[in-house]
Amino acid sequence: MKKLKRSERLVDMTQFLLAKPHTLIPLTTFADRYGAAKSSISEDLAIIKEVFEEEGLGELQTLAGAAGGVRYIPKLSQERALDFVQELCGKLQQSDRILPGGYLYMSDLLGQPSLMNEAGKIIATAFAHRDIDVVMTVETKGIPLAYATAAQLNLPVVLVRRDHQVTEGSAVSINYVSGSHKSIHTMSLSRRALREQSRVLIVDDFMKAGGTIQGMVDLLAEFNAEVAGVGVLVESGAIESQERLLQDYISLACLNDVDARSKMITVRPGNYFQQ
Amino acid sequence: MKKLKRSERLVDMTQFLLAKPHTLIPLTTFADRYGAAKSSISEDLAIIKEVFEEEGLGELQTLAGAAGGVRYIPKLSQERALDFVQELCGKLQQSDRILPGGYLYMSDLLGQPSLMNEAGKIIATAFAHRDIDVVMTVETKGIPLAYATAAQLNLPVVLVRRDHQVTEGSAVSINYVSGSHKSIHTMSLSRRALREQSRVLIVDDFMKAGGTIQGMVDLLAEFNAEVAGVGVLVESGAIESQERLLQDYISLACLNDVDARSKMITVRPGNYFQQ
Repeated sequence: MKKLKRSERLVDMTQFLLAKPHTLIPLTTFADRYGAAKSSISEDLAIIKEVFEEEGLGELQTLAGAAGGVRYIPKLSQERALDFVQELCGKLQQSDRILPGGYLYMSDLLGQPSLMNEAGKIIATAFAHRDIDVVMTVETKGIPLAYATAAQLNLPVVLVRRDHQVTEGSAVSINYVSGSHKSIHTMSLSRRALREQSRVLIVDDFMKAGGTIQGMVDLLAEFNAEVAGVGVLVESGAIESQERLLQDYISLACLNDVDARSKMITVRPGNYFQQ
Repeated sequence: MKKLKRSERLVDMTQFLLAKPHTLIPLTTFADRYGAAKSSISEDLAIIKEVFEEEGLGELQTLAGAAGGVRYIPKLSQERALDFVQELCGKLQQSDRILPGGYLYMSDLLGQPSLMNEAGKIIATAFAHRDIDVVMTVETKGIPLAYATAAQLNLPVVLVRRDHQVTEGSAVSINYVSGSHKSIHTMSLSRRALREQSRVLIVDDFMKAGGTIQGMVDLLAEFNAEVAGVGVLVESGAIESQERLLQDYISLACLNDVDARSKMITVRPGNYFQQ
């Protein structure tokens, strides 16, 4: 790369850091990249750090010493997170979302990458300082949120299947009871998808009693892996907390009530904002 | 926002543009945001444009006039795309990927958000100037690539399901013949997921004869929607071109041969690089 001026360096360093979250970048990487002194790079980083913090985009961690460098930790400020979730709640309350059986149509929202990325940033903020090896979800609707979260945390995604697929190789299957219907389902995970002792962040789009997520927790036990956290986009508030199979989770929004007769849906910010 | 210096503006404008690809941003948005003159903003944009082009990150389109502004079009340079795909081919050729029946284990690669994002950027580059309303895929393995592509193009994703789900409302179902097994399957799309006349980019992780993608094309006809393009991560080269149901598509990689006995896999860059 040709020698850049400070103004050009700032543009390139910003895109470089944003593209590599949760990755330690030695100052020499930048110094070599731009043919600049480390002291100039440090000054550049100070400017970027200030703007990122001012804008509520996250932290730039600077580590001194030989093994040192800089690491971008994406974080959405509480204020920006709440703005986003209140807008999301507004959309979820649109009365034409009500489906037969009191289900809520959410696929249009789950289909918006920018929305999923923003929600993923909030979950990644909540777990930014937790020791995690991998993000897990079960097909299908939680996949975009799981990837958005994992991208921010710089982690791989492990995908649990409903059926055992030929393209997955040998797999471990378990049965689980879905809380909302008390019916038995199967889920399955490729043996090579997850290392033993992995610390796993479970992400899903919706949680009612938590049967599906409890199924993933049980599956983790088969791999001697550990739950490092649980994050969901929407939880159902129409469930008594003693009926809930899971107590330790974060939710971005809480669906309080769906009244099919009056076509009223009530959604409020989730427990993420009550911590 | 407080008044920023040029150096701070450059950092913030860079992150702002990267976060909003394919979105026209009026210069007044920046001028108001930073309390700066439009002429200063134009100078800032010239610096960002130069760095983006130099780095092969994409174009900054500047539109003059009252309805004008700036638009960031993410594009991966041919050189960076080929580097990426050659690395991908190397990974796909690892002999322990061979599964019974000559299938290839790819879930670990599909599970890496950074890899999917880069592949999505290449597909988005190919279709950057096509008129597209929505990206479509069928569950499950193509979902991350579809979202990565859609995020770069600033488009929503429409997800075709294998079964008709209660959370999708009324749906249109079709049967299709999967080319590789000549077996009949069903796919289904929620009626409210897609507007009539939509122009649709179909994205998937793998294509052999193209039966699944042809199924999506047939489904689009039911919605009076149109195919605007087809992009796949890997195509199978073990198929005669007259057997292929589909001729107009781009692939990033081509799986030439899987020899289960000698444990040899041959993968080369796809037709994207032959244009």
